[in-house]
Amino acid sequence: MGDSHRVVILGGGFGGLYAARALRRAGVQVTLIDRRNFHLFQPLLYQVATGGLSPGDIAAPLRAVLRKQKNARVFLAEARDLDAEQRRVILDDAYVEYDTLVVSVGARNHYFGHDEWGEFAPGLKTIEDATEIRSRVLMAFEAAEREPDPEARRAWLTFVVVGGGPTGVELAGALGEIANDTLKDDFRSFRPEESSILLVEHDSRILPPYPEKLSVKAENALIRLSARCITGTRVTAIDGEGVELAGPAGTYRIRSRTVLWAAGVAASPFGEALARRAGAQLDRKGRVVVGPDLSIPDHPEIFVIGDLANARGGDGNPLPGVAPVAMQQGRYVGRAIIDRLAGRTVEPFRYRDKGNLATIGRAAAVADLGPLHFNGFAAWVTWLFVHLMYLVGFQNRVLVLVQWAFHYLTHNRGARLIGPPPAGPSPSVDGDATALRRQTPARA
Amino acid sequence: MGDSHRVVILGGGFGGLYAARALRRAGVQVTLIDRRNFHLFQPLLYQVATGGLSPGDIAAPLRAVLRKQKNARVFLAEARDLDAEQRRVILDDAYVEYDTLVVSVGARNHYFGHDEWGEFAPGLKTIEDATEIRSRVLMAFEAAEREPDPEARRAWLTFVVVGGGPTGVELAGALGEIANDTLKDDFRSFRPEESSILLVEHDSRILPPYPEKLSVKAENALIRLSARCITGTRVTAIDGEGVELAGPAGTYRIRSRTVLWAAGVAASPFGEALARRAGAQLDRKGRVVVGPDLSIPDHPEIFVIGDLANARGGDGNPLPGVAPVAMQQGRYVGRAIIDRLAGRTVEPFRYRDKGNLATIGRAAAVADLGPLHFNGFAAWVTWLFVHLMYLVGFQNRVLVLVQWAFHYLTHNRGARLIGPPPAGPSPSVDGDATALRRQTPARA
Repeated sequence: MGDSHRVVILGGGFGGLYAARALRRAGVQVTLIDRRNFHLFQPLLYQVATGGLSPGDIAAPLRAVLRKQKNARVFLAEARDLDAEQRRVILDDAYVEYDTLVVSVGARNHYFGHDEWGEFAPGLKTIEDATEIRSRVLMAFEAAEREPDPEARRAWLTFVVVGGGPTGVELAGALGEIANDTLKDDFRSFRPEESSILLVEHDSRILPPYPEKLSVKAENALIRLSARCITGTRVTAIDGEGVELAGPAGTYRIRSRTVLWAAGVAASPFGEALARRAGAQLDRKGRVVVGPDLSIPDHPEIFVIGDLANARGGDGNPLPGVAPVAMQQGRYVGRAIIDRLAGRTVEPFRYRDKGNLATIGRAAAVADLGPLHFNGFAAWVTWLFVHLMYLVGFQNRVLVLVQWAFHYLTHNRGARLIGPPPAGPSPSVDGDATALRRQTPARA
Repeated sequence: MGDSHRVVILGGGFGGLYAARALRRAGVQVTLIDRRNFHLFQPLLYQVATGGLSPGDIAAPLRAVLRKQKNARVFLAEARDLDAEQRRVILDDAYVEYDTLVVSVGARNHYFGHDEWGEFAPGLKTIEDATEIRSRVLMAFEAAEREPDPEARRAWLTFVVVGGGPTGVELAGALGEIANDTLKDDFRSFRPEESSILLVEHDSRILPPYPEKLSVKAENALIRLSARCITGTRVTAIDGEGVELAGPAGTYRIRSRTVLWAAGVAASPFGEALARRAGAQLDRKGRVVVGPDLSIPDHPEIFVIGDLANARGGDGNPLPGVAPVAMQQGRYVGRAIIDRLAGRTVEPFRYRDKGNLATIGRAAAVADLGPLHFNGFAAWVTWLFVHLMYLVGFQNRVLVLVQWAFHYLTHNRGARLIGPPPAGPSPSVDGDATALRRQTPARA
């Protein structure tokens, strides 16, 4: 034991990073492995997707975060497979040996068996997802500016968000703000306020895990930003022209050029390696079923935490895939490793639910903090404070605060970059009476 | 004339934007066309390339910049060709009619006939160039961390910058700072200070357009950051393994996995459309030769400004492709259009050279402001002030100032994101005695 005990942590998200930090004074060797070189503050990804923040603002380099932790090292690599007998993680063309393994590789977008929807309805899990969504949303307004046909323009100005959980609500709110505030005077051939923002939710109300009163408050806040909630409704098809919905009133189609996916995630494929190589059991969503101490049966040296884990809460249901769960699990596992090495008994993991927060556009939010339910400005300030507090890296906090203060005062959004134009011809541009005319037959 | 006079501006860089702004009170219709939706503050691109700033910090949405200018509209489109007879700019599948055309589409990287070098030695013209360079530089340190062979590691830790002009000097200085300060304690298997940074310049000294004394000061500042200048030396080959150099001592090879190009730019291909369709004359670098009023012969209604223009300075030489030239030309052309419509005589364009500034790492710079030559901290503060003053968009100024203050105080760099891993297998990872072992034969 002691210095020779090798802890390998897969994934530098909240779970992995909190586990590494909990081990900072332990006499173990920590190796953190991630495909990317930064920790991503996922709760603010939607702000990048809607031009409020830059990718760098919500990403902290893992090396910088762990610089002072002398017992930790970082490898940039992808874990491909596992050899549970030899206790090795297989990388592309190397392996790493462990005495204890902590797997915290998260989740990815899941289209309920319709992977072909991914092309038309990007989800929001990575920095690249966020900049892709940002480009699509801004490009839709650009295309509307050049579109003379009112019906076609309407399709460019219709935004459908699938999934009425916190991410969907935050996306829809931010879109409403962009259309009603940010871009207000930016266009000449239409008014951005004409946009339709539709939030589609399968359940009978948005934010289903929150108390019903807050769902109503959230819906009202969205309505003020001209976003409409379509509840009790399933998406049955998505293509480049729009979505098909099945609701209480039957099946119908909505023309939309921009569909965003906030409906479902599934565990990362590394769960299958755990099942194949270590006999782990997977649930329907691909999550790894773990015991009370978050390790897998027959392999007490392998912990699984965060979105990849199916850990039971006090009510017997799996804990939700949110940042606070991953943080608490990471910290727990770090301590459990220390306790085991010291020969102390390890108590089962217990999640302490400190509540839920969701923000809806500028200066509005809903908060469900146990006995406290509140909304509006107070909830928004709470949301701001909680998120800033957890933003890893001091510089990011200051930058994010400056950007938010600026948004709040000016209704502006700074990070409005559209990605590079595709190699092929650009999207169809059509005429405007004075400045832009449809191209007449080929020139001499 | 009056409201019916249509001014079309191609390119939203310094030239195009200053021209559009100079027309803000004129009774004309302004249409600004750009492939991208943002104005890019190119003098700070090297800061994005070296992780000091985020792309959003140096990019201002064109629509936001021109929001209040009611006589201006913005189109996101690429100008493909010109019909000088009908006075039309041809877009992908539409055209735009003009009465006056201002072409300010800039320059692109130029490899002196060796386009194959582009793959190995990215230049620094676009946001994507900058994030690509950032990924390569950070990835080189990551690869060095995993490389057990000392010689191969040395190639990862050797950075070659080709071209000793202001961009090359700024890149080399920023690389020196990254190696000596930013990443100091981030790695476990080598010290970033072991890195070699080599700045290769064809001329006998770096910063050839500056007074000789400042070249020496700049070289000393670079040496303090462990960057070495190799002057009087040409690059004769670049590939994935390094560069071949031909200097006073003959031809030799330097092993390096990261080569950056700051040596040459050529005018944008739209110059060829001007030559083909409007009889414009191009110089050796593809720039359009313009008259004293910056219009092209036989087409007084077509102005060419910025990096695309070959305009003679007071000394008979073409003006350099720098931001102040483009800004002054844009402002001049805007006024010339107003004067012409009012029937007033248009004076020839005269560039007023306010000096040159280049920064070298943290808190050092050289300034050549006419009679004033200075260097060190005073020049750095001047540089900071001048660049902040011109940063378009208030929010960006505040953000950039916060980031710089933070760098200055902590030697940290926030925007250290490496792009997504390639789809194929990741770069070769080799063993380290304790944590990472070379993969043994395929597993059972």
